[in-house]
Amino acid sequence: MGSSTGRIFRVTTWGESHGATVGAVIEGCPPGLALDVAAIQAELDRRRPGQSAIVTPRKEADRIEVLSGVFEGVTLGTPIALMVRNKDADPRAYAPFADKYRPSHADYTTEARYGLRDWRGGGRASARETVGRVAAGAIARQVLTHVGVEIIAWVDQVGDIGAAVESTGVTRPAVEANIVRCPDPAAAAAMEALIRAVRKDGDTIGGIVKAVARGVPAGWGDPVFDKLEGDLAKAMLSLPAAKGFTSGSGFGSVGMRGSEHNDRFINEGGAIRTASNRSGGIQGGISNGMPVEISVAFKPVATIFQAQETVNRAGEAVPLKPRGRHDPCVLPRAVPIVEAAMAMVLCDHWLRTPRRL
Amino acid sequence: MGSSTGRIFRVTTWGESHGATVGAVIEGCPPGLALDVAAIQAELDRRRPGQSAIVTPRKEADRIEVLSGVFEGVTLGTPIALMVRNKDADPRAYAPFADKYRPSHADYTTEARYGLRDWRGGGRASARETVGRVAAGAIARQVLTHVGVEIIAWVDQVGDIGAAVESTGVTRPAVEANIVRCPDPAAAAAMEALIRAVRKDGDTIGGIVKAVARGVPAGWGDPVFDKLEGDLAKAMLSLPAAKGFTSGSGFGSVGMRGSEHNDRFINEGGAIRTASNRSGGIQGGISNGMPVEISVAFKPVATIFQAQETVNRAGEAVPLKPRGRHDPCVLPRAVPIVEAAMAMVLCDHWLRTPRRL
Amino acid sequence: MGSSTGRIFRVTTWGESHGATVGAVIEGCPPGLALDVAAIQAELDRRRPGQSAIVTPRKEADRIEVLSGVFEGVTLGTPIALMVRNKDADPRAYAPFADKYRPSHADYTTEARYGLRDWRGGGRASARETVGRVAAGAIARQVLTHVGVEIIAWVDQVGDIGAAVESTGVTRPAVEANIVRCPDPAAAAAMEALIRAVRKDGDTIGGIVKAVARGVPAGWGDPVFDKLEGDLAKAMLSLPAAKGFTSGSGFGSVGMRGSEHNDRFINEGGAIRTASNRSGGIQGGISNGMPVEISVAFKPVATIFQAQETVNRAGEAVPLKPRGRHDPCVLPRAVPIVEAAMAMVLCDHWLRTPRRL
Amino acid sequence: MGSSTGRIFRVTTWGESHGATVGAVIEGCPPGLALDVAAIQAELDRRRPGQSAIVTPRKEADRIEVLSGVFEGVTLGTPIALMVRNKDADPRAYAPFADKYRPSHADYTTEARYGLRDWRGGGRASARETVGRVAAGAIARQVLTHVGVEIIAWVDQVGDIGAAVESTGVTRPAVEANIVRCPDPAAAAAMEALIRAVRKDGDTIGGIVKAVARGVPAGWGDPVFDKLEGDLAKAMLSLPAAKGFTSGSGFGSVGMRGSEHNDRFINEGGAIRTASNRSGGIQGGISNGMPVEISVAFKPVATIFQAQETVNRAGEAVPLKPRGRHDPCVLPRAVPIVEAAMAMVLCDHWLRTPRRL
Repeated sequence: MGSSTGRIFRVTTWGESHGATVGAVIEGCPPGLALDVAAIQAELDRRRPGQSAIVTPRKEADRIEVLSGVFEGVTLGTPIALMVRNKDADPRAYAPFADKYRPSHADYTTEARYGLRDWRGGGRASARETVGRVAAGAIARQVLTHVGVEIIAWVDQVGDIGAAVESTGVTRPAVEANIVRCPDPAAAAAMEALIRAVRKDGDTIGGIVKAVARGVPAGWGDPVFDKLEGDLAKAMLSLPAAKGFTSGSGFGSVGMRGSEHNDRFINEGGAIRTASNRSGGIQGGISNGMPVEISVAFKPVATIFQAQETVNRAGEAVPLKPRGRHDPCVLPRAVPIVEAAMAMVLCDHWLRTPRRL
Repeated sequence: MGSSTGRIFRVTTWGESHGATVGAVIEGCPPGLALDVAAIQAELDRRRPGQSAIVTPRKEADRIEVLSGVFEGVTLGTPIALMVRNKDADPRAYAPFADKYRPSHADYTTEARYGLRDWRGGGRASARETVGRVAAGAIARQVLTHVGVEIIAWVDQVGDIGAAVESTGVTRPAVEANIVRCPDPAAAAAMEALIRAVRKDGDTIGGIVKAVARGVPAGWGDPVFDKLEGDLAKAMLSLPAAKGFTSGSGFGSVGMRGSEHNDRFINEGGAIRTASNRSGGIQGGISNGMPVEISVAFKPVATIFQAQETVNRAGEAVPLKPRGRHDPCVLPRAVPIVEAAMAMVLCDHWLRTPRRL
Repeated sequence: MGSSTGRIFRVTTWGESHGATVGAVIEGCPPGLALDVAAIQAELDRRRPGQSAIVTPRKEADRIEVLSGVFEGVTLGTPIALMVRNKDADPRAYAPFADKYRPSHADYTTEARYGLRDWRGGGRASARETVGRVAAGAIARQVLTHVGVEIIAWVDQVGDIGAAVESTGVTRPAVEANIVRCPDPAAAAAMEALIRAVRKDGDTIGGIVKAVARGVPAGWGDPVFDKLEGDLAKAMLSLPAAKGFTSGSGFGSVGMRGSEHNDRFINEGGAIRTASNRSGGIQGGISNGMPVEISVAFKPVATIFQAQETVNRAGEAVPLKPRGRHDPCVLPRAVPIVEAAMAMVLCDHWLRTPRRL
Repeated sequence: MGSSTGRIFRVTTWGESHGATVGAVIEGCPPGLALDVAAIQAELDRRRPGQSAIVTPRKEADRIEVLSGVFEGVTLGTPIALMVRNKDADPRAYAPFADKYRPSHADYTTEARYGLRDWRGGGRASARETVGRVAAGAIARQVLTHVGVEIIAWVDQVGDIGAAVESTGVTRPAVEANIVRCPDPAAAAAMEALIRAVRKDGDTIGGIVKAVARGVPAGWGDPVFDKLEGDLAKAMLSLPAAKGFTSGSGFGSVGMRGSEHNDRFINEGGAIRTASNRSGGIQGGISNGMPVEISVAFKPVATIFQAQETVNRAGEAVPLKPRGRHDPCVLPRAVPIVEAAMAMVLCDHWLRTPRRL
């Protein structure tokens, strides 16, 4: 279990990092969508390794193939299967670690759960699994566009360097204007320099991605166990390297009083809005028509090019110095992944809106 | 949808804040458990309104009734239904707001989703819904005890006042030693004073609950979409007033380098452990045998006893001054709720461990 | 698992035959339904033991209590919990069999699965569990009435005595005109005589229930694994004592040629219909606008008042002569149960109709 | 929805009859299985068109490709994706019917549900979709072999010609000894002659498949809504052209008395068995250790090569004479499909066996 998500817009991904393929099946995509395959490819290109000087050099064209569910360019309402063939899989770099547990990786825990593992590049625990998420999310995004929802994520912090931007004004071009995907150009330059310096040390660094969904109407999200921020939190904490999630005011709310925090309702030209948005667009787990705003904390990548100590399957202490190709900082590539994850959740919740009598 | 959670240990709650009853059905509880009903009641007592001078004075004995699933004191493996009758429901306090949207409550969003709402006390969005969670979580906890897992949560911060405790040493008696449920006595006293002061102002305040699960063996948690921290994040963000979640190093990981953050594997008397626990007991979404550690941020309660402005169903600006009985700070009562939510997730993931050939 | 059914209109039942209560929680009932509680009670009365001279004399008033989900008489879209307290539970009759496996009952298999069982009256395997289904089905029926769907079931055969009726003309009053619930009065009289004779012998007898749903529009039912007849088949084969299911022409289709069996499409006053209905209203798993027609075979009740041989928990051969109160023929009481099961499936499939772009 | 089945051993199929590929993803396959890909291919070969003189001549090699989930020949416990590329898709034969509704096909109902359809060969409603089921079922069968379960199906009736065999003695070689897959050689010869005669008439004919699962231990199957025969019934009624299902004594039970029908428990060399098996190996929805026995009725194939009348999308009466390549009788190819469906259900129920404390 674990490789599926969503109730109605239901996505199942498959594929190991260095296996033959990675892919996804999407069930429950509404029929009648003129599917833009180039737009799916464009999202994969944003996620792709080798896209810039500050990401992993693994060479994958990541060309998407649509295997089913589309007829004459239009979705049928049947399962849409999407596949990418792995081209630059190079398991040789991993052979020395076949029986060693890399620190802060899933090697040990995968064996504890399944009794065996594909040691070539982390198997399913590799960030390569997110190819399927990004492809599926790109379809979710196309569905959402029909109902007027726009999703934008960006790198808001790398290490201690934060961006100075207001979420309301961030645009896709501003995010894509630099290879860090930070819409604050000055901060972006500093972040890039930090990432380059960290990589030079054979080290890695964490950061924060922020995301906003604009145009979500009031009424999306189930109460109680399937609150909208609950599903967003799960989607984000299920991304590789994610360690924290906030909705709206987040941890900043802790020090506030109710009289400061409450979002006052107002009538804005006939529409009910809130004067502030500390709720992050969600109240009682249901969207209130304001922008949905979240943050995700990513830890530094576990693979560092420095000597470390660990143990092997036999429990013996062994030295370890990773090879392979890795990102010094996941943040730039995490942006399209966060957007995809957010799109899947929102699309599913739209489709879960109850029918009234 | 939204009122059920879990795959195998599956909990469904029912009941409105001021309706006849609140309750839960638990499917998938293993057969053969000698059910300790008094222990369920004890958890409800920790959650109960009116338990101390710093919580809501609503008077509810919250006596649990076991409706099914137990024979001669032992679970049958069939659904266990649990119910509490609401006694002190007082809808009159809410009548003046029947058509007004209380700021930062779920009134407006519930109507947007369902077209109507039970205006008496927030309906399902009320914290009263957590009676079912706590009862179900108390059963999950009894199951977990069988496999050696202990769960402890505590109030780690109220407003700007933080506790100075190490998660490894926190005990249940230390938590229960004061009405704030903070194991640092000095901090607890300051927190209590703050809560009293805030209440005097007709205001409310937020805070942070931390929780740890000790004794979780390596191998719990599904990879990809149902990672253990993903399900914990969802469980916590689905609690009323929750705004943020972290696992292990959380947002603190952002500023760290991989060489600082990685948890080195060691052999400790034949057992594989990690020398540090920045992973919070979870790697690749699967438990690694170290304590599972999380934090949850709670915003200040939305109901304040101060005049506010809002709009009504017709979109007209109207004044609002809440009545009813409310907590100035949810934190003390959130402790057993967080524990229950954590227990449900862990119990379900234990039962999801794959069978090997 | 096993005590829940449905994807959107999701029903979970609880309760053992001789436990404290039996009940159900319904999630996903659309908001805004003016719930007719008397109509729920009326269906329970049709299912009730002691209702006539040819059913079990167990005395249960089966008064339904609505525990949640309804406000001012209208459904909120939140879980509706329904409960009946068991009044005439008499476990003493079962004590002699506490360690014996009654032939063709679930005693042995329940122990094989769970390691223990509630031996008082069959626990969850008792037909008493269907109280929850009938209550939930009565709500599903009210939802379906809103969209113009009418469901009628009747006893079509008892032993070798068949009714001579066309499904198109059967009405509820004709079904309720006699205690057998067979709309052919002559056959009904013969069936009643047979049931009385069989009971006199301390024996039991099987039969067939037919059911039709009129007014189902074209387009309900998912293809592939969740075909409408697949879900109906599962719902029916999950009823106690059911051994067979057919849709439309059923086993009669086996001897036919395609040229005889095919249902020709015609234009009937602007509406697309079929000239015949051997498909039973379902083609490719999806309703086609014609009446949905099914049959269910029920075996004779396993409890007979004759001496039988069996084994006990220790595997020793032991004699067994059941006591307790039992039906000589489940058919008359199966009619409202089949209707309820059909209503739940149809209501759920209506709510699963995909949203189009 | 509808393209997934199973709770733990969960199968999702994709692909249209004349699209690029058909395939399946299997989640929840236990780790550690040495996957026999040749055995999967062998099952596909039994299902393959063009395999004999009495089935459709569509030429499809149906070569299976394993896309993920297997490492060094062993299952990882991760999703196993399997794919077959469609080679002999010939949509031209269907172009004349692009806007006509073929009688007793899913053309009309698919459009009613989705608003559009892939008219090339029936899309998802085509029997070609069962490629994915057979591939997934072949894996389920390998898992079941580990626990000693053997599944055998055969053609028991074609038109009015029935086989004279006892289910206990049927072997795979006897089934595969002729192209009809009927283990009674004399009946098989008569069936083959009938199928050839029917095809000569441009017509089709129905029949019955029987299946038995031997070696299922007592205790598989969930009570109430997910009874073993309920899930088997759903799996079978979700196969193309299925119209009826029975478990054990089936419709034959209707005319029996309880004293005739009950299966007496006996102690057979220390094992608890039943002296007869009218229960078909299932009591109260749970296996009892006896062979699980079912029957499935298949209607005659809807595509006949005779002139028929129907209506088109505009509702106009139009003549129709199908072309394309079709089976005169699905029965011979239904045998591996029924086995696959049964294997999936049993494998899933094995994995659902509750953990005891």
